[in-house]
Amino acid sequence: MGSNLARKLIADHLVDGTMNPGEEIGLAVDQTLTQDATGTLVMLELEAMELDRARTELSAQYVDHNLLQTDYRNPDDHRFLRSACNRFGAWFSPPGNGVSHPVHMERFGAPGKSLLGSDSHTPAAGSMGMLAMGAGGLEVALAMAGRPYYTRMPKVVGVRLEGVLPDWVSAKDVVLEMLRRWGVRGGRGRIFEYHGPGLAGLSAMDRHVIANMGTELGATTTVFPADEAVRAFLHSQGRSADFRELQPDPDCTYDEEEVIDLGGLEPLIAYPSSPGNVVRVAEVAGAPIYQAMIGSSANPGLRDFAVPALMVDGRHVDPGVSFDINPTSRQITENLMAMGLLGKLLHAGGRIHQPGCNGCIGMGQAPSTRGISLRTVPRNFPGRSGTADDRVYLCSPETATASALTGRITDPRELNATYPPFREPEGLILNTSMLEAPPEQTAPFPLVKGPNIASLPELEPLPDPLEGPVLLKVGDNISTDEILPAGTEVLPYRSNIPAISSFVFRYTDPGYPDRAFGFRQEGHPHFLVAGENYGQGSSREHAALAPRYLGLRAVVAKSFARIHEENLANFGILPLVFTDPANYDRIRQGDLLRLQEAPEALGGGEAVGLVNRTRDESYRLRHDLSPRQADMIQQGSLINLVREGEPGRG
Amino acid sequence: MGSNLARKLIADHLVDGTMNPGEEIGLAVDQTLTQDATGTLVMLELEAMELDRARTELSAQYVDHNLLQTDYRNPDDHRFLRSACNRFGAWFSPPGNGVSHPVHMERFGAPGKSLLGSDSHTPAAGSMGMLAMGAGGLEVALAMAGRPYYTRMPKVVGVRLEGVLPDWVSAKDVVLEMLRRWGVRGGRGRIFEYHGPGLAGLSAMDRHVIANMGTELGATTTVFPADEAVRAFLHSQGRSADFRELQPDPDCTYDEEEVIDLGGLEPLIAYPSSPGNVVRVAEVAGAPIYQAMIGSSANPGLRDFAVPALMVDGRHVDPGVSFDINPTSRQITENLMAMGLLGKLLHAGGRIHQPGCNGCIGMGQAPSTRGISLRTVPRNFPGRSGTADDRVYLCSPETATASALTGRITDPRELNATYPPFREPEGLILNTSMLEAPPEQTAPFPLVKGPNIASLPELEPLPDPLEGPVLLKVGDNISTDEILPAGTEVLPYRSNIPAISSFVFRYTDPGYPDRAFGFRQEGHPHFLVAGENYGQGSSREHAALAPRYLGLRAVVAKSFARIHEENLANFGILPLVFTDPANYDRIRQGDLLRLQEAPEALGGGEAVGLVNRTRDESYRLRHDLSPRQADMIQQGSLINLVREGEPGRG
Repeated sequence: MGSNLARKLIADHLVDGTMNPGEEIGLAVDQTLTQDATGTLVMLELEAMELDRARTELSAQYVDHNLLQTDYRNPDDHRFLRSACNRFGAWFSPPGNGVSHPVHMERFGAPGKSLLGSDSHTPAAGSMGMLAMGAGGLEVALAMAGRPYYTRMPKVVGVRLEGVLPDWVSAKDVVLEMLRRWGVRGGRGRIFEYHGPGLAGLSAMDRHVIANMGTELGATTTVFPADEAVRAFLHSQGRSADFRELQPDPDCTYDEEEVIDLGGLEPLIAYPSSPGNVVRVAEVAGAPIYQAMIGSSANPGLRDFAVPALMVDGRHVDPGVSFDINPTSRQITENLMAMGLLGKLLHAGGRIHQPGCNGCIGMGQAPSTRGISLRTVPRNFPGRSGTADDRVYLCSPETATASALTGRITDPRELNATYPPFREPEGLILNTSMLEAPPEQTAPFPLVKGPNIASLPELEPLPDPLEGPVLLKVGDNISTDEILPAGTEVLPYRSNIPAISSFVFRYTDPGYPDRAFGFRQEGHPHFLVAGENYGQGSSREHAALAPRYLGLRAVVAKSFARIHEENLANFGILPLVFTDPANYDRIRQGDLLRLQEAPEALGGGEAVGLVNRTRDESYRLRHDLSPRQADMIQQGSLINLVREGEPGRG
Repeated sequence: MGSNLARKLIADHLVDGTMNPGEEIGLAVDQTLTQDATGTLVMLELEAMELDRARTELSAQYVDHNLLQTDYRNPDDHRFLRSACNRFGAWFSPPGNGVSHPVHMERFGAPGKSLLGSDSHTPAAGSMGMLAMGAGGLEVALAMAGRPYYTRMPKVVGVRLEGVLPDWVSAKDVVLEMLRRWGVRGGRGRIFEYHGPGLAGLSAMDRHVIANMGTELGATTTVFPADEAVRAFLHSQGRSADFRELQPDPDCTYDEEEVIDLGGLEPLIAYPSSPGNVVRVAEVAGAPIYQAMIGSSANPGLRDFAVPALMVDGRHVDPGVSFDINPTSRQITENLMAMGLLGKLLHAGGRIHQPGCNGCIGMGQAPSTRGISLRTVPRNFPGRSGTADDRVYLCSPETATASALTGRITDPRELNATYPPFREPEGLILNTSMLEAPPEQTAPFPLVKGPNIASLPELEPLPDPLEGPVLLKVGDNISTDEILPAGTEVLPYRSNIPAISSFVFRYTDPGYPDRAFGFRQEGHPHFLVAGENYGQGSSREHAALAPRYLGLRAVVAKSFARIHEENLANFGILPLVFTDPANYDRIRQGDLLRLQEAPEALGGGEAVGLVNRTRDESYRLRHDLSPRQADMIQQGSLINLVREGEPGRG
């Protein structure tokens, strides 16, 4: 029996484990992608690991998120990242060059390669037969250091596309239909592999739209075959030599099956505030809008701007609408200009912004109070636009543009216009001049750090014995947003662990950072006691690293959220679980605790004794640490382990 | 003896006073210009005046400053301004349509008209034979309400231009030469009137560059004749009918004379951090730069982008340089695209931003820490870029572009290139579709206010008797920046007096707003005691209006800065001066003061008695108020006076 393409790609990169769904597997990483919002910490981690040069075939660093330079911090980060690319041997794509995912596809994407990116939309590269996954920054740093990426073997869902898309319906509507059927959690532990005759009508960039928003389905990744569409794409980029046909075997099977008749689709829209709230545009039509926005990695193709340009040709948008155009990349912008299409968008009232993520990640373009915004972006989570009470809808460029013209949510078919024909031209203008190659030779290029960029703090080994006060006791379901908030006040310190640590638990207990730092200064570690599901939510690693900087060395909880538990171990904090949850009630904030076992004993077993010296009591705890994790905690962090050249799995 | 052009323009608009330099004159205002940073308060003032419709020939509201929408506040302001234009009968130029001064010139500028704008660079329109001046927001609001603008009759300086500019030297170098000769205060109380044979080589937009930066010389305004260059400009805008030739009389004289030989100029540059620090580029060449920025109202013409585009054609900028391109207006951007010039800038590495002020007013594009930035903008005051320790140089587009190519400050002549020929094409693309005309008919169009936009507070008449505590005593030279700081935390509240009042004296005495508001709530006004030169610096009217909102009704000082003294009177606060400055030392913060005279007595004389009830003393004070000013204070504010239909001078 043949193999589907996803399993072939995994088999080609498997270095550890077996391919049974749910089991952990280790995968070799050919390429990495980092963007600026996550990349600065990745580079600081590489510095802390004392890496000489990236071991990947190719690593690329993009600046596309933090393009708003309201003070020195973002431009300093840009300069730092450029210097880090020189130091560690990565490509540098400067601010204004475009959104990471489509630029990576244009310049570096290659069928059959694996790609790990510190951005959740990295799976977009699955559109060209790559095995592309998003991960946390430290995972990407480890991949750059030559280590495999560990994840659980997903199920593979075969999605058979049949038929041809009708006029006014495009790739965005396909993935919105998937979201309508599967919801925002339906893809968890799964790879979606698209196949079938309907593929013939979808260009590589159309497929990028679908693969990109596979992330919104919760999928591990999305895979498309490398077929004629991918060959044509690479040819158009002057990279025919990188093409390699990749198809599933004709007799392959899938763990689950799905079928979409493209011909039966109509314009769809996700209403606020989840990508899963998908309805027909007709169901919400008529509401007046403040904004229509075209662009982002979820509609990056030339056609995604060309069709709107042709739609508005000779007209102008409703004067009350902010029609924000975010061209994808320097190259696509240049082609749109040369073809006269960007001029049409501008003439009709568009606000043309520099290539980048821009409003998609809340960097500008926030809508007015309660103003409806129609966007071709992948996400409409509450407040992500920058406006707390926003009303963001996700839709195709056709629907956004039709609505900009009328000033109201509009099914584009209601314009009674002819669907504008668009064929990508032969002989695209190529632009590679602003991609900076890594230096040929390794050399000690200096890292250029502004005053807001601090090297990672030294992470000392676990003290023996581990004794310290409980400086904070919290309840159930504490999220990483509560541990370390996001937002415009906190995010500018993403490259500065000492500075960002002053925001830890700022809404829960604003006095905690000072208290903790005071103890740390005197040489004392401390404990934190928590209820169920500690560390749920966002995977941000700052939520472990910043408390660690403040001296946190053990969290004693009823239970942990998985990713945060891993982050705690990576950064040298013991995650310990009450054997008897009732003991949670016996410990008070301020109690002095002491671990009975010496650190080296942790690797040997799952049971740990904890003495409450204040109350003269002791409790049984357990842990789920592997011997390697116990070792990294004892040594202070996974980074220390890598620096000391320990082989094998992180 | 004939008249120079400046005097002719003034004579044509004179409604009050005589044209002796230094004497106050009243001028009829034909047109007004407001931008968004100052316009919201202007519109709130019109609302408070209960104006039905602007009395000017033309009023235009531009959105060009606050284009960064990081939350609801800026887009809410944009929507509010659009609604206010409907309400009060003004043109609305939406965000993305371009910088006010060049757009106004393209669409509305007309030789012989007077223009008052709530932006200090309004004199740019002097490039086409207009009498154009900048003023505070309330002055512009009064002009919209049909009142004359009062200022002191300036001297007229005749600047004779001879010869022809050499290659690589352009209009920016002419005004930098003026700044080199006259400094940043040399133009105070003066109008610069350019004349002579050298004018023939300067287009209307070249003259805009020079007139715009007359503001940096401290001039009241700058005037150019309306000659063939202006005729050609209006023809290119499809507005030939608005041309009217205006020339000084051949036998006219000037109060002062200046001569510039254009042929003898070379590339100049103003080093940090004043426009007056002008040296030859050669003197500072070689320093590595972080940024080169093209655009702003100080280099707005098509040629200011076309020459850089031709300079970078076939090359690319140094990879370490952020090459920021801020096209002036929607129309200029569209023409640059159609001519293939914007594509060249993009291809060479430019970051193309939406039309607007952008980095010129610190809305993005901040340089890195200590990074050198070369800008074609009018100002390089410290920190204006957004980066506190910035190093901003002012120069021509030629010098900025040459430096972008080399990565170092570079005299463009050192490129050893051919100076690119550029002639403005016939048949420019015109774009007026995004300029929204005022409604034909007056109607009660509602003002659309987001939660951060508050109507002006009601400003009650002066209590009789005026008695209250001294809630703050300050020293000499208190600036309006100390009274009400600017900055990113405060500015978003520019449309919300109650909210912004909580920042009053925040660095001097953070407790003052709460203390004052508490007294106000209980019905008590309060006093402030100050030393010499109270209210120096920026003319911002919030520095009077916000303390007034908190209940301040009298400032007793050793002396006042002129503009702030006027602002105090406009907003109903008594500015009183110690007859014997030694009495300053006798009053303490917390003392209870009482004015001896009844409010209506203020208009009758200059002497006022003040009783210190705490110390059982009394002091003699004087004031410089005209009877009208005394009346407006008594009535509560100039706004109240206008609302009640009082005629005559404000």
